[in-house]
Amino acid sequence: MNMRDIIIAKRDKHSLTDEQIKFFVKGVTDGTIPDYQTSALLMAIVLNGMDDREMTTLTLEMAASGNQMKFPYLEGVPVDKHSTGGVGDKITPILIPLIATFGVETVKLSGRGLGFTGGTVDKFESIKGFNIEVSPKDFHMYVIQTGMVISGQTPDLAPADKILYALRDVTGTVDSIPLIASSIMSKKIAGGASAIALDVTCGSGAFMKDYGMAKELAEAMIRIGKLAERKTVAVITDMDQPLGRFCGNILEMQEVYNTVTGKGEEDVITVVTELAFQLIKLAGKDAGMSDEVLRNEIRARLSDGTCYEKYKELIKSQGGEWNDMTGPVYVDKPFDCMHVNAPEAGYVTGMRADLIGQASVLLGAGRLAKTDSIDYGAGIGFFAKIGDKVERGDSLCALYQGENSTLPEERLFDAMDLILEAYEIGPEKPETKPAILDVIT
Amino acid sequence: MNMRDIIIAKRDKHSLTDEQIKFFVKGVTDGTIPDYQTSALLMAIVLNGMDDREMTTLTLEMAASGNQMKFPYLEGVPVDKHSTGGVGDKITPILIPLIATFGVETVKLSGRGLGFTGGTVDKFESIKGFNIEVSPKDFHMYVIQTGMVISGQTPDLAPADKILYALRDVTGTVDSIPLIASSIMSKKIAGGASAIALDVTCGSGAFMKDYGMAKELAEAMIRIGKLAERKTVAVITDMDQPLGRFCGNILEMQEVYNTVTGKGEEDVITVVTELAFQLIKLAGKDAGMSDEVLRNEIRARLSDGTCYEKYKELIKSQGGEWNDMTGPVYVDKPFDCMHVNAPEAGYVTGMRADLIGQASVLLGAGRLAKTDSIDYGAGIGFFAKIGDKVERGDSLCALYQGENSTLPEERLFDAMDLILEAYEIGPEKPETKPAILDVIT
Repeated sequence: MNMRDIIIAKRDKHSLTDEQIKFFVKGVTDGTIPDYQTSALLMAIVLNGMDDREMTTLTLEMAASGNQMKFPYLEGVPVDKHSTGGVGDKITPILIPLIATFGVETVKLSGRGLGFTGGTVDKFESIKGFNIEVSPKDFHMYVIQTGMVISGQTPDLAPADKILYALRDVTGTVDSIPLIASSIMSKKIAGGASAIALDVTCGSGAFMKDYGMAKELAEAMIRIGKLAERKTVAVITDMDQPLGRFCGNILEMQEVYNTVTGKGEEDVITVVTELAFQLIKLAGKDAGMSDEVLRNEIRARLSDGTCYEKYKELIKSQGGEWNDMTGPVYVDKPFDCMHVNAPEAGYVTGMRADLIGQASVLLGAGRLAKTDSIDYGAGIGFFAKIGDKVERGDSLCALYQGENSTLPEERLFDAMDLILEAYEIGPEKPETKPAILDVIT
Repeated sequence: MNMRDIIIAKRDKHSLTDEQIKFFVKGVTDGTIPDYQTSALLMAIVLNGMDDREMTTLTLEMAASGNQMKFPYLEGVPVDKHSTGGVGDKITPILIPLIATFGVETVKLSGRGLGFTGGTVDKFESIKGFNIEVSPKDFHMYVIQTGMVISGQTPDLAPADKILYALRDVTGTVDSIPLIASSIMSKKIAGGASAIALDVTCGSGAFMKDYGMAKELAEAMIRIGKLAERKTVAVITDMDQPLGRFCGNILEMQEVYNTVTGKGEEDVITVVTELAFQLIKLAGKDAGMSDEVLRNEIRARLSDGTCYEKYKELIKSQGGEWNDMTGPVYVDKPFDCMHVNAPEAGYVTGMRADLIGQASVLLGAGRLAKTDSIDYGAGIGFFAKIGDKVERGDSLCALYQGENSTLPEERLFDAMDLILEAYEIGPEKPETKPAILDVIT
């Protein structure tokens, strides 16, 4: 078997055999296949696709290319959740304790943010003392003690995927449903999840700009899940505007705290409830409740203190400082340094989430390059979202910086310009989209 | 401008701009574009194609990536001829002196053979003393003195094409009309040709297996020629069986000598006459003759000694030894070491030229790897070709070795097996194809 024949097979629209895919992933992992052959095959996959069996084999081989986590001490099904990324997406910190109250155990491996998509790791790091670089021993200890763990350490997890992803980024081969789907699923499977909930975001602030593409990706991942014998569900959520009222690390964690203490925004509650519902069902922890009863029970636990207690346990177990009056103690304090005002009266008809994400990065809440440092206090709070009526001069949103920020003032104005471009204001009240566009099982 | 955007443009089926193609060829030549990006773009071109303007720009940029030959002292149009390769293809050594008798000047840069396609350089090197590694000074001197030169030296000619070709070979991106056409045309243009005749071979012994593909390639090169302002003509020739009666270096040069002394095979004469006719017309050296008169005149010069004299001049001018009784003096002497006999009676209905070429390589007439040495005396002589009637036990062909050959005996039997596989014998006399399938201008 040689790589040239494998490339030619895919170029000529053939399905690759399992042996060919194994050969490819092994050669990528051990470095025996040169990058120029790998990138030629990647482009052939982008243009000629892969069938379900190929995607699944690629997924499983990438998952098996490094360490695969196992939780032999768990009685239940460890679950994982993945979001394809968005602006203001603070679902994970709410979801983990919420489903833990139902006895669902989560093993969550998260990444840092790059570009306008915030990273869950960065959000937890905005809490003083929170230890996100969990050692393997502690990782399992947390799971045993609390049924929850959130870790930024993914040392030798699916190394083939890491290599391929780096190459895809520079060779124009990112946009491919089979490659995206197998990349996501390989990491989830290597992380040891038996049940997986996928939050496939869709809209201006997401990687998938339209519903058709998002649905295609969701369906591909579900087909992989079926063939790989992992229970998988996908929720397609709207990302045409930011989720909730805030984006930025501390700002979002404050919104998380509001949500687990019964003061959440409806869109955040809707999405987290649906994901919790699906994962509880997949894990078989619904205790015989009807769907309606279960959904109501999930919502109730966000406001009756049940989820709050579990959230506190999560934060404290990993070393995060906690104040019983105000919740987590953060590494900085966001202050509201400028408001962006409506240039005209009307209804907010659009809110380009990608531009808002970029503005947030400009303020220091995210990274442009991997080595950039973050201002945990920076971010944006939205007074007006799609469908809201505004008068000329009304505040659309507030820009935040951390108290220790050294941001040059012109960056604030650059951010403001982006936000003014992002907000579309028109005379007619627009139809608003639901937060959840589809659930695919 | 960056390479990633160029890759994405072609991936998304856009035409590349002239600036993008220039950026690409420059980066390939100076090594600033990494191979993994180049191979991703090559695969995107293979699968999404290129329009005429893109192909032409790619051709001209590759031609301009190194030294471009110029012949300011020539009054006429220097011509060049290119064959896409075949088995027993001995057209060039006949064509150059033949058109020179009409005052058409040829500047011929040739390659060595690799795989079953013989190289013109190897054929001339089978003549004692023939100097094929011509210095730049001698190159021009030969053109001035005789109007002919054949050189294996192509030091800095279209280096971008060389780099791309090496990469295409290992990344499954050879099979692409735009890439093949621009590769061929870039070398011809860099070599300084103003008029170009293309011999596009077609059949089992050619790169293009079927007529449709051969025609598509021919038309692409002609369109490039038009846009690049080089007079171009293509002749599509049959390569379902070897051309002439012999393959192998000395054996083919002996057949060349036979042809220029009036004892040529009809298929060889037909092809060389058509190519000569087209080049003489393109160069404007037809001296007002009608097409029919010109064709007859060309044929006549193959048998009346005119071409013979010019052939002798070509060989002697570049140092080749010549015997006035027998023609060129060769470096070895082929001897007929085994006959392959017909296993059954009937008509020869097929003759897989690729297998015959492989058999010839096994005998030592060609190279499997670039560093292999050649047995100049090795090759095959065909007694029976397609349409011939044979009895069981009749000799189909003779296998030759040079007198100094050290070939292990089992190789002879391996070659025999290939030849028995190549010859198809059936009860019905087959229709025979003409040597020339089409002429495209």
